[in-house]
Amino acid sequence: MGKTGFKIGVMAPAARIEPALSELIQNLAAELYPETTPEIVFHPQCYLSSGHFAGSDNERSQAFLDIANDPSIDALWFARGGYGAARILETSLPKLKAPAKDKLYLGYSDAGSLLGALYNNGFTQVAHGPMPADLNRTGGEIAISRALDFLTSRSAETLEPSVKPSQPFAAFNITILGHLLGTPYQPDLTDHILMLEEVSEHMYRIDRALFHITSNPNIRKVAGIRLGRCSDILENDVDFGKTEVDIIEDWCKRSDIPYLGRADIGHDTQNKIVPFGKSDV
Amino acid sequence: MGKTGFKIGVMAPAARIEPALSELIQNLAAELYPETTPEIVFHPQCYLSSGHFAGSDNERSQAFLDIANDPSIDALWFARGGYGAARILETSLPKLKAPAKDKLYLGYSDAGSLLGALYNNGFTQVAHGPMPADLNRTGGEIAISRALDFLTSRSAETLEPSVKPSQPFAAFNITILGHLLGTPYQPDLTDHILMLEEVSEHMYRIDRALFHITSNPNIRKVAGIRLGRCSDILENDVDFGKTEVDIIEDWCKRSDIPYLGRADIGHDTQNKIVPFGKSDV
Repeated sequence: MGKTGFKIGVMAPAARIEPALSELIQNLAAELYPETTPEIVFHPQCYLSSGHFAGSDNERSQAFLDIANDPSIDALWFARGGYGAARILETSLPKLKAPAKDKLYLGYSDAGSLLGALYNNGFTQVAHGPMPADLNRTGGEIAISRALDFLTSRSAETLEPSVKPSQPFAAFNITILGHLLGTPYQPDLTDHILMLEEVSEHMYRIDRALFHITSNPNIRKVAGIRLGRCSDILENDVDFGKTEVDIIEDWCKRSDIPYLGRADIGHDTQNKIVPFGKSDV
Repeated sequence: MGKTGFKIGVMAPAARIEPALSELIQNLAAELYPETTPEIVFHPQCYLSSGHFAGSDNERSQAFLDIANDPSIDALWFARGGYGAARILETSLPKLKAPAKDKLYLGYSDAGSLLGALYNNGFTQVAHGPMPADLNRTGGEIAISRALDFLTSRSAETLEPSVKPSQPFAAFNITILGHLLGTPYQPDLTDHILMLEEVSEHMYRIDRALFHITSNPNIRKVAGIRLGRCSDILENDVDFGKTEVDIIEDWCKRSDIPYLGRADIGHDTQNKIVPFGKSDV
């Protein structure tokens, strides 16, 4: 439903989006919440183009800070994945001000670099879930609707089904979490249930990244791992001969981490929401 | 030249090699050193096949230990890269015995997982350089000849030209070093000059891996970075618009690590040898 006057700011930490997408998202929000339409402000940075990125590192960092530090905005919604969020961590994090901590952050995939770093910096309202660019998927409205329900009402139905109160959770793309290990941005996931998902990788790379992740001493302190969907697996020159479940079970066994089964997250419209930390605080 | 009776053991920590390759290597060694032909023993594990790997993890680990712990063998030469060395670290390292520390280890690419872990465990004779499978490259004899010169005589002409006494060095494939960060296998590279090379990656992945590497607090203590060759770069859907030198210069600048220029290493026949630590000890 959403409270009246809920305001969402959108910026693109990695790849750009088309201006037409923001209009479609705003129209969909108006349709879904005719009485309490949230205000969704797309930062002009979303449409910039600088090679691979939605504007330069400075432009992306500034847009992130503009929204994060604006006390009139309730939530920061990352527009899209790709690659680029990691490049603005070191310059942006020290410039976050008090209003940034009162805000809800939502995204996944590459945006996980920022989610992880924010969570590591004591931000308590950080969540893994759909982004505006998911509207480009077939049936993407369902993902956007879920994201808006969560952003405006923290609706329990939007959450990954195994999320329960009093248990801390976190969710990441496998490759993105791997690239946070051993950096000042790696969050402490002791006693968390960690959900992982992947897209467009070779199976041997998933295996290698899970060697890395499950070898990290802090990750070995998680309460368990759940595996989301690993979609669009690239073909190996020699078939790897194992499924993603074989792989995660093997690494969990070796590292004495409980494997708790599948998670309902992934690069698709079914991607459910995983709030970081305990969902009841 | 090589001392009489030098004995080299070869095992394959990742992908398998063909039996014909070992014969070619042995013939080449006999040609190069007619008087002091080193004995090159290929462990039968090199020819095993288990999906992606040269035998199961147990078989590869056992072959590694057979050679490393054999006091009659002077050097362990990794046969080939691919992916797999990381999978045998945790089970193999605790089983290394005294003769393993007196041995010279040579390899690169995926074998860097073992080189890094051995160096981290106090092994002082660890080097980055050509492997038997490099004979399959056009003009590969030059790489094998360099490796054999180094293995048997530690010949100074085989070394990467910037390697100098009293300065510690290390060399890694970028992706492989990234996957050691934050694990118990990450070596302390304080004050080292770190040489990095890459093959068959997208430029954005090289950028992302260098974010990761240069964000690590221990890597920020290196004396400097030299960049080897980054070959066979895969095409980006949006061209990344930067060269590998642009990228390393950028990350070195951001992380206050001196960038020292190019290194004569890479996935090619020119790949020079980089002994880990100080080459004069």
